Amino acid sequence: MRSRHPQLNVHGELHHLLSIEGLPRAIIERILTTADSFINVAEREVKSVPLLRGRSVFNLFFEPSTRTRTTFEIAARRLSADVFNLDIARSSTSKGESLLDTIDNLTAMQADTFVVRHAASGAPYLIARHVAPHVHVVNAGDGRHAHPTQGLLDAYTIRHYKKDFSNLTVAIVGDILHSRVARSDIHVLKTLGVAELRAVGPLTLLPAGLEQLGCRVFTKLEEGIRGADVIIALRLQNERMRGALLPSAKEYFRNYGLTPEKLALAKPDAIVMHPGPMNRGVEIDSHVADGGQSVILPQVTFGIAVRMAVLAIVASSPRMQ
Amino acid sequence: MRSRHPQLNVHGELHHLLSIEGLPRAIIERILTTADSFINVAEREVKSVPLLRGRSVFNLFFEPSTRTRTTFEIAARRLSADVFNLDIARSSTSKGESLLDTIDNLTAMQADTFVVRHAASGAPYLIARHVAPHVHVVNAGDGRHAHPTQGLLDAYTIRHYKKDFSNLTVAIVGDILHSRVARSDIHVLKTLGVAELRAVGPLTLLPAGLEQLGCRVFTKLEEGIRGADVIIALRLQNERMRGALLPSAKEYFRNYGLTPEKLALAKPDAIVMHPGPMNRGVEIDSHVADGGQSVILPQVTFGIAVRMAVLAIVASSPRMQ
Amino acid sequence: MRSRHPQLNVHGELHHLLSIEGLPRAIIERILTTADSFINVAEREVKSVPLLRGRSVFNLFFEPSTRTRTTFEIAARRLSADVFNLDIARSSTSKGESLLDTIDNLTAMQADTFVVRHAASGAPYLIARHVAPHVHVVNAGDGRHAHPTQGLLDAYTIRHYKKDFSNLTVAIVGDILHSRVARSDIHVLKTLGVAELRAVGPLTLLPAGLEQLGCRVFTKLEEGIRGADVIIALRLQNERMRGALLPSAKEYFRNYGLTPEKLALAKPDAIVMHPGPMNRGVEIDSHVADGGQSVILPQVTFGIAVRMAVLAIVASSPRMQ
Repeated sequence: MRSRHPQLNVHGELHHLLSIEGLPRAIIERILTTADSFINVAEREVKSVPLLRGRSVFNLFFEPSTRTRTTFEIAARRLSADVFNLDIARSSTSKGESLLDTIDNLTAMQADTFVVRHAASGAPYLIARHVAPHVHVVNAGDGRHAHPTQGLLDAYTIRHYKKDFSNLTVAIVGDILHSRVARSDIHVLKTLGVAELRAVGPLTLLPAGLEQLGCRVFTKLEEGIRGADVIIALRLQNERMRGALLPSAKEYFRNYGLTPEKLALAKPDAIVMHPGPMNRGVEIDSHVADGGQSVILPQVTFGIAVRMAVLAIVASSPRMQ
Repeated sequence: MRSRHPQLNVHGELHHLLSIEGLPRAIIERILTTADSFINVAEREVKSVPLLRGRSVFNLFFEPSTRTRTTFEIAARRLSADVFNLDIARSSTSKGESLLDTIDNLTAMQADTFVVRHAASGAPYLIARHVAPHVHVVNAGDGRHAHPTQGLLDAYTIRHYKKDFSNLTVAIVGDILHSRVARSDIHVLKTLGVAELRAVGPLTLLPAGLEQLGCRVFTKLEEGIRGADVIIALRLQNERMRGALLPSAKEYFRNYGLTPEKLALAKPDAIVMHPGPMNRGVEIDSHVADGGQSVILPQVTFGIAVRMAVLAIVASSPRMQ
Repeated sequence: MRSRHPQLNVHGELHHLLSIEGLPRAIIERILTTADSFINVAEREVKSVPLLRGRSVFNLFFEPSTRTRTTFEIAARRLSADVFNLDIARSSTSKGESLLDTIDNLTAMQADTFVVRHAASGAPYLIARHVAPHVHVVNAGDGRHAHPTQGLLDAYTIRHYKKDFSNLTVAIVGDILHSRVARSDIHVLKTLGVAELRAVGPLTLLPAGLEQLGCRVFTKLEEGIRGADVIIALRLQNERMRGALLPSAKEYFRNYGLTPEKLALAKPDAIVMHPGPMNRGVEIDSHVADGGQSVILPQVTFGIAVRMAVLAIVASSPRMQ
């Protein structure tokens, strides 16, 4: 029988990072605390620590990405790992090799950790179940399912600016239905004990079951962000706008775009977050994106430290069995 | 006049690696022995040796590849070389620059070694004839002609599991007509003195002249692998299945697919090899690919050590003249 | 109000390299002198100096390139910088993120220097105006506007072979209208005091205003290169030949192709340069490209040292303000 927590080893340590769901609070907090210790590495003249020296980290991005792939690469290099970026679209997979055969082959090249982004929800689980006990898998975004390091860096960012989660009202705004970021954010913030977590968006973009996850649901932006300490604006995928779920980008912006006027309904010291890449003028107004309450770029910087923490922690779990 | 061995310098040392054909047994054995010494590098905490420090290795893959390109990159990095992967399809060649002008330009950037994969048979020879005397060329697969490092790693794998070549029966199975791997395997195994070398496949996929190369030819898989010590299953290129040479993948699998039942005809301790990427259910059954007699993944691991050996040996030959 | 020299800081030091236009002669000469000191780095066993240790250089090539991208990568690595090559075409820009948002994100990843090639003239200026004061931008070619490091390496090459600029006649030959190389060459050579600078090409490929830039204009190749010390042949973009500006490549070669017979009209010790990639048989005959007067490959080698100099000098200018 398979364990209910396929990412933890028998000692309850983090061996893979596949999802925030089911992750004990202690492990999440350990990741955030470890990230603290890496924040300063970037400030040093020699921006590396030797924790992963001699280890090989393979970036397997089956979907294109700048931000996530590059921050993982920077994180792994700062830990002194050997990093390999595989250009998957142009390689063996185009010759019909199966995903798991590709993984086996890279493992035979002494890969220690796979950082995986895949359009199919669950692909990182499939890989994690398959790999040898000494190999680690980090989910860098799978389908609509999870983007756990984004959830963790969002939590890190909130903790950085707000210190304590227990009094916070956090509003996640936008296309929650298709967002792996929203899913991971909800799990991490509920686990860390946010006082009130709100899901805000048009009915067609709100999945069922949000209340069971602990969210208050709002279909009006003004109500959803009123009094909030933190607003997380989600990217509206361009393909949604071409589909039947939304009338138009302009209409969406009028109702759910985060403008200075709308933001004024939140707490005066509310922070605004966004996982990127932004659609300016769709889910967020440039005055907000570039304004004094935006912490969108610090999120990126913190993301490196958080990914260093994840890579270092999973690598310190020697074997799955 | 051109030398008969364009890959050897005047002292008979390996300067380029272009083909197994015509390579003296002593050089092949030196490569295998040198690879032995690199097998343990991967086990060390610091997985590198300084043999190629300050040297530049350029990976020029005009055809896509994961396995070969990545293992060459790992091999070169473990030797402390500076490695550059050129994305050829998107670069100057698309502006109409000739292959040799590209080579000249990279040499002007102080390239020391070119690792070349090209769809045209003979392209690495063309480059080797053109480059300056201090520059080395390693063929990473050219057209249907040769894939010498695959031949060498196959020989290394066989030697690892079977020790002595002189009593072995080795069966190469599948699309020998289009396979550069088969051609290099035949040359390396004949040179190393395999007792019996068999070429097994449908008539349409068997080239003329196999007997002259020292192979026994079989068109029935059952006869071809009976009593064999080593079975090398070749990848069936997908494009062959769409052409006129084969009725269908299903039909091919029925006749030439390596199943547990067929494998039982070989020696009980026979090993099964495959250069990858595999078409499971076409040339090989998953029970065989993943079974106890398969050494397909060790081939990949050994491939790194063998490629380290090749890069180190050619680099120790200072000049062509 | 914006400064007239957006690439210099308040102390007149080079902070960005965007264009040769407006660059003081002293700065150009400092770059060439600094490049001298890097020429020998390539000859050393350890081909690096620690000037940019801990700095991150991001290669942002929105147009494909082998030569320029690779020489910048080699230059940055030899200065011990961490180099990141972004595959822009496949990344966030394809998700509709704006150029400046991409830049902001990379800056949040602690990018120190951006090396930018872009099809739009002025894109590096846009970026330079936008980035934080500690970040540097180096133009690696923007539209038809400028290619300043090519201009500098051309000046370096001429100085290497001819020592003094003040007695030289330099002829730039070919498609000057569409050439950012020509524009940068004209500015750098006028600033360095070349005695006579000639622009040679068919009327349809000569822009207006060349005389105002200090060029003598020739529409006949024979007249244009007569007595020249240096001939810079420009690449004829393939797309020009398909357009209405030129009758055919063959016709172009007959009138403007640099052949040994034409070259004989120049000074006997004239050198021939070309920015690459060459169209042999279009703007240059192979006997000239590969002949004794060609310094086309040394240009490439010198380009590394010149780019090292540029990266090192801009990085030594701590802040823009």
